[in-house]
Amino acid sequence: MASTLKIALFISIFCIFLVSPITSSKPHPLDSLTAAELLLVRAVVNQSYPSSNHKLTFQYVGLDEPEKQLVKSWLSKPTTKPPPRQALVVIRLNEQTHEIIVDLSKRSVISDKIYNGFGYPLLTIEEQEAAADLALKHEPFLASLGKRGLNISEVICSTQTIGWYGEEKTKRELKVVCYYLDGTVNMYLRPIEGITLAVDLEEMKISQYIDRAVPPMPKAEGTEYRASKLTPPLGPRFNGAPPTPPGQTGFNIDGNIVSWANWKFHLGFDGRVGPVISLASIYDAEKRTYRQVLYRSFISELFVPYQDPTEEWYHVTFFDCGEFGFGIYAVPLEPLNDCPANAVFVDGYYAGQDGNPVKVSDVMCIFERHSGDVMWRHTEAELRDQEVREVRPEVSLVVRMVATVGNYDYILDWEFKPSGSIKFGVGLTGVLEVKAVPYNHTDQIKEEVYGTLVADNTIGVHHDHFLTYHLDVDIDGDANSLVKTNLVTKRVTDKSIPRKSYWTVQHETAKTEADARIKLGLKPEELVVVNPNKRTKPGNKVGYRLIPGSAAGPLLAADDYPQIRAAFTNYNVWVTPYNKSEKWAGGRYVDQSRGDDTLAVWSNRNRGIENKDIVLWYTMGFHHVPCQEDFPMMPTLSGGFELRPTNFFEYSPVLKTKPPQHLSWPNCTA
Amino acid sequence: MASTLKIALFISIFCIFLVSPITSSKPHPLDSLTAAELLLVRAVVNQSYPSSNHKLTFQYVGLDEPEKQLVKSWLSKPTTKPPPRQALVVIRLNEQTHEIIVDLSKRSVISDKIYNGFGYPLLTIEEQEAAADLALKHEPFLASLGKRGLNISEVICSTQTIGWYGEEKTKRELKVVCYYLDGTVNMYLRPIEGITLAVDLEEMKISQYIDRAVPPMPKAEGTEYRASKLTPPLGPRFNGAPPTPPGQTGFNIDGNIVSWANWKFHLGFDGRVGPVISLASIYDAEKRTYRQVLYRSFISELFVPYQDPTEEWYHVTFFDCGEFGFGIYAVPLEPLNDCPANAVFVDGYYAGQDGNPVKVSDVMCIFERHSGDVMWRHTEAELRDQEVREVRPEVSLVVRMVATVGNYDYILDWEFKPSGSIKFGVGLTGVLEVKAVPYNHTDQIKEEVYGTLVADNTIGVHHDHFLTYHLDVDIDGDANSLVKTNLVTKRVTDKSIPRKSYWTVQHETAKTEADARIKLGLKPEELVVVNPNKRTKPGNKVGYRLIPGSAAGPLLAADDYPQIRAAFTNYNVWVTPYNKSEKWAGGRYVDQSRGDDTLAVWSNRNRGIENKDIVLWYTMGFHHVPCQEDFPMMPTLSGGFELRPTNFFEYSPVLKTKPPQHLSWPNCTA
Repeated sequence: MASTLKIALFISIFCIFLVSPITSSKPHPLDSLTAAELLLVRAVVNQSYPSSNHKLTFQYVGLDEPEKQLVKSWLSKPTTKPPPRQALVVIRLNEQTHEIIVDLSKRSVISDKIYNGFGYPLLTIEEQEAAADLALKHEPFLASLGKRGLNISEVICSTQTIGWYGEEKTKRELKVVCYYLDGTVNMYLRPIEGITLAVDLEEMKISQYIDRAVPPMPKAEGTEYRASKLTPPLGPRFNGAPPTPPGQTGFNIDGNIVSWANWKFHLGFDGRVGPVISLASIYDAEKRTYRQVLYRSFISELFVPYQDPTEEWYHVTFFDCGEFGFGIYAVPLEPLNDCPANAVFVDGYYAGQDGNPVKVSDVMCIFERHSGDVMWRHTEAELRDQEVREVRPEVSLVVRMVATVGNYDYILDWEFKPSGSIKFGVGLTGVLEVKAVPYNHTDQIKEEVYGTLVADNTIGVHHDHFLTYHLDVDIDGDANSLVKTNLVTKRVTDKSIPRKSYWTVQHETAKTEADARIKLGLKPEELVVVNPNKRTKPGNKVGYRLIPGSAAGPLLAADDYPQIRAAFTNYNVWVTPYNKSEKWAGGRYVDQSRGDDTLAVWSNRNRGIENKDIVLWYTMGFHHVPCQEDFPMMPTLSGGFELRPTNFFEYSPVLKTKPPQHLSWPNCTA
Repeated sequence: MASTLKIALFISIFCIFLVSPITSSKPHPLDSLTAAELLLVRAVVNQSYPSSNHKLTFQYVGLDEPEKQLVKSWLSKPTTKPPPRQALVVIRLNEQTHEIIVDLSKRSVISDKIYNGFGYPLLTIEEQEAAADLALKHEPFLASLGKRGLNISEVICSTQTIGWYGEEKTKRELKVVCYYLDGTVNMYLRPIEGITLAVDLEEMKISQYIDRAVPPMPKAEGTEYRASKLTPPLGPRFNGAPPTPPGQTGFNIDGNIVSWANWKFHLGFDGRVGPVISLASIYDAEKRTYRQVLYRSFISELFVPYQDPTEEWYHVTFFDCGEFGFGIYAVPLEPLNDCPANAVFVDGYYAGQDGNPVKVSDVMCIFERHSGDVMWRHTEAELRDQEVREVRPEVSLVVRMVATVGNYDYILDWEFKPSGSIKFGVGLTGVLEVKAVPYNHTDQIKEEVYGTLVADNTIGVHHDHFLTYHLDVDIDGDANSLVKTNLVTKRVTDKSIPRKSYWTVQHETAKTEADARIKLGLKPEELVVVNPNKRTKPGNKVGYRLIPGSAAGPLLAADDYPQIRAAFTNYNVWVTPYNKSEKWAGGRYVDQSRGDDTLAVWSNRNRGIENKDIVLWYTMGFHHVPCQEDFPMMPTLSGGFELRPTNFFEYSPVLKTKPPQHLSWPNCTA
């Protein structure tokens, strides 16, 4: 898929680069590359390849974060010189992929390697648009439109990755799919079907064109979703959220460090993965210090296989982070509706195909959430002479980004709770990917259609979403272990007791990576990351446990190509030892990858993970059988998981919180 | 457990009964019994047993709701005479349980049967208090206190149900457990251990007293949780929620009918189960009519088995609804903290032991929730000439009650979403039930302690919570079926396709009760309740699907007594045909029940459930391994499940909602 509007956001800040050095009021080694830094990277790389006879494209530019130990060492003495600031740059040059490291202070390339393995880098929006544009000028395609009675001016083309299906040799190719507006802006619901169109990205020409069949075009009826165009019958009306007094954000941002209540973390933004939360630590009032929880966390990959194996659809198995980029496809958030009135918005930058910074305004928001839930409460009614009632309403801090990768909008939330929990929330909304069929009623259907008939001529195709998170946990320090707390039934042996059974816990520490490959739901267990070197006063190992949610597993055959590429979804949980290069669960080069550089492959080395600096990987999954309510716009389907302190604190960290001061509605003039 | 404060809430409205007939501005056949009706019931029953020589106690008084068909028939012609209004009254009289039906309009007993089966009715608060009081005057107990050096004035006693452990004959008995305040109000954390004390409730005398051991008393250190007594180090401070303009509740209450956005439902309150949501229906703007979803829903039982099989603990396996009553133990909600500023509070009534109405003020709240989530959104960035961004923030309506059954506070939420979803949320908070041990450090522990050492001398004992919901679904009418939509992997057979596999759905309609006993998580499936007689325009069966959450299963041995009594937790999902008498999953008489009247037994009849008026039962489960953060007050642990429309509507019911009008912060004077 492409995104034409993004191009309009290209910013012209060459002057900044020319006149000012890289500056930041509070520079931090984990800061994302600034616009000025992206410009510097561009200049340095272009200087390395000065000829204008070649095609040089920037496929990915991001912070090459310093080795963890360097960062930690600097953090312990922040007055010393920070670790060198470097960028990882992936370019395509003369049909080859280069991995370049640029040192920003030296303003030079310090490493430049040609990548000869399988798979290709992130796609650029520009090359996707160029590929899509080819279709609109392709004579056979125009003939196909004529055959269908469609008007070229109403056609929008977009791109899909092609996947890998056992081919020995591959070239950088995309598939192009087109949609027909003609009365709707909800293009995904009007696919022009029956056509296979592939584009060779290096030569930028159409490499395959087949017009196999002419399914009917679904009508545009009922696809409109813009408020300005609504016609009766209208849906329910709602009150807005209560207005927030100006300035009452509740948190501070200092550079890229956000601090709120007992939490503190660094917020970054990356073109590939979107938000990056680093150095999340929580203040322990008892110990009078911040204690580490997460060194670095981000969504590592998102695998979306569709389940229609027919000619025009079998390849539709997206890897949204590694192929398209969750940050690149992030969209500006709408004040009051995407985020509440008390939200603060943050911009983000990534490198466009020519290396220039692209700004995404309001790409993330940070807000204090007053959900209406209860943080803790108790009424003590058993005391004879007094009533005790103590209630603390829940207040939390949310960091939100939305990535709209074509039809789907993914709402990503990081929610920090004063109780020490971090909730990783995902909302799935947007528009279904549909297939055109000749049917208006299920009774007419005598063949497999691979989905639900959600409207006339419209099948909502079965698919999955697997979101894999990279969670570099540092529970009160680097050296951590995964403990599986198994709940096991025991028989009572004491004959004087009439009860026959109970359950207890058996702790099992994962020693190697194989011990930590876990499919959730098969047995009752708690998964706890502990720091085995630190114990609480009563002697418990300090830890954080994983509270799963939406833990589906893959249903594709293990030997099927998309599943080989997405083998990182074979387990819901994996643990690996920290390795700076193991960031992206699907591998560094995911487009047409062959599965030789996935989390599953790394884990097969079966390294030691006990009392080591470890990374926890969590995959949440959704099997989506579409329904009519998902048409023409899907109400958000939510999922998530939680990291929750477990014997990390000596006692509840929210025990000593007073109830908030509630403002009443003041005297106001109209 | 008992609750002394409740007694103080007894209201004196005899005069109402004397001077006025039962009136309600908008009477509805499903209205809970009013205070005046409870008084009438009392008078009628007392009239039947005029002698003052016997002990007559009211164990339960609740609406004996009319047969569903009568209600439905009246609803279709609400100008006709409503079905007769009747009360189900369970009394103990001369050591026998009577089930009495009182007709309120006839002001007479129309049925009075002696129950001779196993098990006893709900306990009254008064008899629990009387039992607890016995301990404080029991010489051997006073001696035990002396031996422990404890001061009687600081002792609080409470009660526990005794369970059933294979005894052939039982009598109504309770166990009494005592706690030591002496510097804390957090009594549960200071159990006086080693003592077994049982009370015969009929004779109201101590039937067993053993002082077996003298474990140390945990210190009161760090157990204080009242804001007024906080000492440094303090926890984080928070902003209050944004103030809501007065009167902006967003919903209407007419009699007991709540209407909000596209939802309408009847709200009741019952001493045994708490909130009862009836006749929930959703307005279909397209069809211009309300369509049925739930006829009646409530929490049917809550099973809380502790996992310590030693002498003083093995019996601790509570059934909170059937033994104690979730409505009876409901507590007044605290404005602004338990429920947000825009909440409306509702009072509830139940019958005390003498039949008089007991009022629980502010027992439920209803509020519009602005959670900060997104109802649906889409940014369309692929159109060349325009940007489209439409976002609708989530707004929902919540009905909340909190039942504090001793140490635990259960927050029950019914959340109605404009998208058609109903979310059943549960929050678990309050205080741990702990056991005193001689240890201050885990290294000292060489025996099984059945829990976590959460503080000095304090074991947080392992336990479970199983909450079973009764969901009388009426999806667009009475006749419904459960369809299991199995997701199955298939191999691709078309040799021209390089992909090897995909998944598809196979629908399987549950024909009898056996087909609908489901343990969740064992295979990928969707569970959908459909109305097989109604189809959407494209031909899909109209339905609602169950989206599970927190679906743990039992870990006790199936032949163990508590599990036999709680056999309704053996599956997460069951379906039964509608039967007015099958309301309470643990049986009508749960105290010392023997498992012969549970949902599991009813289901064994294996009745037909296809295209029938059916009831869906859902059990959510939590295994709780306590941790130090749960001490001395547990941060809320949340769980829930959702009923979500699936081809119920022709298209998304929130498509045509405009964004809410957001008020900005107005000009205000201080």
